[in-house]
Amino acid sequence: MKKILVINSGSSSLKFQLIDMTNETVLAKGLCDRIGIDNSFLKYTKQGQDPIIINKEMVDHKDAIQTTISALTDEKIGVISDMSEISAVGHRVVHGGEKFHDSVVIDEEVIKAIEECIDLAPLHNPPNIIGIRACQQIMPGTPMVAVFDTAFHQTLPEYAYLYPIPYDIYKKYGVRKYGFHGTSHKYVSERAAVMLKRPLEELRLISCHLGNGASVCAIKYGKSVDTSMGFTPLAGLAMGTRSGSIDPAVVSFLIEKEKMTVEEVNELLNKKSGVLGISGVSSDFRDLEAAADSGNKRAKLAIDIFCYKVKKYIAEYSAVTEGIDAVIFTAGIGENNSRVRRQIVEGLEYLGIKIDYEKNNVRGKEIDISTEDAKVRTLVIPTNEELAIARETMKKLNGK
Amino acid sequence: MKKILVINSGSSSLKFQLIDMTNETVLAKGLCDRIGIDNSFLKYTKQGQDPIIINKEMVDHKDAIQTTISALTDEKIGVISDMSEISAVGHRVVHGGEKFHDSVVIDEEVIKAIEECIDLAPLHNPPNIIGIRACQQIMPGTPMVAVFDTAFHQTLPEYAYLYPIPYDIYKKYGVRKYGFHGTSHKYVSERAAVMLKRPLEELRLISCHLGNGASVCAIKYGKSVDTSMGFTPLAGLAMGTRSGSIDPAVVSFLIEKEKMTVEEVNELLNKKSGVLGISGVSSDFRDLEAAADSGNKRAKLAIDIFCYKVKKYIAEYSAVTEGIDAVIFTAGIGENNSRVRRQIVEGLEYLGIKIDYEKNNVRGKEIDISTEDAKVRTLVIPTNEELAIARETMKKLNGK
Repeated sequence: MKKILVINSGSSSLKFQLIDMTNETVLAKGLCDRIGIDNSFLKYTKQGQDPIIINKEMVDHKDAIQTTISALTDEKIGVISDMSEISAVGHRVVHGGEKFHDSVVIDEEVIKAIEECIDLAPLHNPPNIIGIRACQQIMPGTPMVAVFDTAFHQTLPEYAYLYPIPYDIYKKYGVRKYGFHGTSHKYVSERAAVMLKRPLEELRLISCHLGNGASVCAIKYGKSVDTSMGFTPLAGLAMGTRSGSIDPAVVSFLIEKEKMTVEEVNELLNKKSGVLGISGVSSDFRDLEAAADSGNKRAKLAIDIFCYKVKKYIAEYSAVTEGIDAVIFTAGIGENNSRVRRQIVEGLEYLGIKIDYEKNNVRGKEIDISTEDAKVRTLVIPTNEELAIARETMKKLNGK
Repeated sequence: MKKILVINSGSSSLKFQLIDMTNETVLAKGLCDRIGIDNSFLKYTKQGQDPIIINKEMVDHKDAIQTTISALTDEKIGVISDMSEISAVGHRVVHGGEKFHDSVVIDEEVIKAIEECIDLAPLHNPPNIIGIRACQQIMPGTPMVAVFDTAFHQTLPEYAYLYPIPYDIYKKYGVRKYGFHGTSHKYVSERAAVMLKRPLEELRLISCHLGNGASVCAIKYGKSVDTSMGFTPLAGLAMGTRSGSIDPAVVSFLIEKEKMTVEEVNELLNKKSGVLGISGVSSDFRDLEAAADSGNKRAKLAIDIFCYKVKKYIAEYSAVTEGIDAVIFTAGIGENNSRVRRQIVEGLEYLGIKIDYEKNNVRGKEIDISTEDAKVRTLVIPTNEELAIARETMKKLNGK
């Protein structure tokens, strides 16, 4: 059980990494894009080399898997001599509903259960299933594991995951908080325990996964006890293009006043809101900071709103974990943006959070940026969802 | 300027209190109900006496004001000999939009501005205006003041009141956080300063107005800096029958899956949700506690959800005020329900909040229920919106 292929399958794309688990190195990674569209291609990167583009017609995900295997076993650019060297495949699956509390070895029953969650993630689960089916066709003998974005949050208590709406709606449709980014929150919490040299089972952690999608997770003694995303990934923080939680009456107001359809409102709140909606400039924080620095007030406002909401969630979740041992920053913005980190924690000194501005001046590196005397540690931890999926895959196939 | 009539005008009801401001006592109070419907009546209570019911046809709010004045000046049940003894009228107005940062003496321009806020509060502002008009007709010479539920929250900073949705929607429709219960939050914050014998301008307060409608307000140095209700009173906490903030995607999900109209979803989230929706029992906490005590799990769950959300808001807003001097409990549940208060603050010891269970065993009384050594004071303060409106009315007419 040494080389694991990690697959993240979208509607017209398929991302992969082949990881050698003896030393957890990425042998090769790639992205098949424009699957089923014209001009499809594979962007492929062999360890230690520059990325190359391979133009190849891919009419479906089976073609994409075939293209991936061909590249991985290619004499020149490949990293393995034969497909049989791939010990297992780990699939990212977005929504496991209430069925999956953990990763699981894939069989027909599991696929059926993932299909039953399609209503909860109509955009994500179908391509995930297509990716699994394609792999099964190309690599029929290889064991596969599904790793869910939602599974880590299945430990939330009932009073935290239920919405205060008629209970029947929960029973009928499964409308409740699920939470996402679970693989990432779990991974960084485990890294935090290593960094702090303390057992995870003793730690009260607030994990801030701040990327284009963003969520905060309260992790008490190794278990997710609350998280900011909800029934869907729209809830919680202000994000790149998503509104996060707003007065639900705004949805009906827009439908009535702007004569929008439900689809149009969903589009507006998911694709045109967040820091993009406020700034009118970009969903990318590098653009926002450049604009703010040259005097664009709405760009500054967008950053202020983003940071204010993360700050409030850290404080809110300190009540859930009853005090904090460490705050974790991860994902694109969390790992790389020192200004945003600084703005978020400013004013949280009363909770014992205090960062060293010198140490904070870091990008994408695992580091404790707290001042020596801070009661609460503030950690920057690059996330690695692919490695986390590969580890989960190993663990499940070893029967753990 | 001694006797102030306070009016709270609803679509088919009109509540009033006549307050003698020399000693702030209520001379008489009443409720005209079923206005414009059949079997309308006035429930009238003279100070120190039992309520009486006066059956009287009231086809509109003008009739209701007339009935009110007749009762107040009646030889037997009245408390004044002539209408001219009423020095001024204070009107509760729900929504002042961004136009009103304070109470205001009513003139035609003010009424016009209140009318312009109708889109923001289509159920509340029209009856408020009808009440004002009716008073003007019956008491043409009496000065009147409008006191807004939203005004106190107009000090929120931009990054706190703006939703992360396209900025144009804010500019076009005024979609933003307004907040409500402002008169109550302001009143109890002023009482807190008196109780703590410290200037309001030095205090960081979290005010929890917990009634059938419920909201939390962060008050820093006398100013509202954030609050849990939003564009409408639907947002924020779980309430008696309101959902509070939920994933906005739930609204569109219900419209699609349950084939609901926008009105039906609004009805569901405003009238059938909250602790009633979860428990299926009642929106009244006395019923819920009785049910929970006799083993009803969903009734207990509803209470747990309610308390959990208040607890989280207290912690969240501690970040906004950068530490807390006092937490205030007010309104029906906040003033009277010691079990709920206890459940809310349990686990917040890390913030310095600690209550004395003996002292907490109190109903509707102004009292500091903290332990001697608690760093943060926890106060029970009965709210009095009518008195607050009367005081505002005095103040405005004295030109302050």
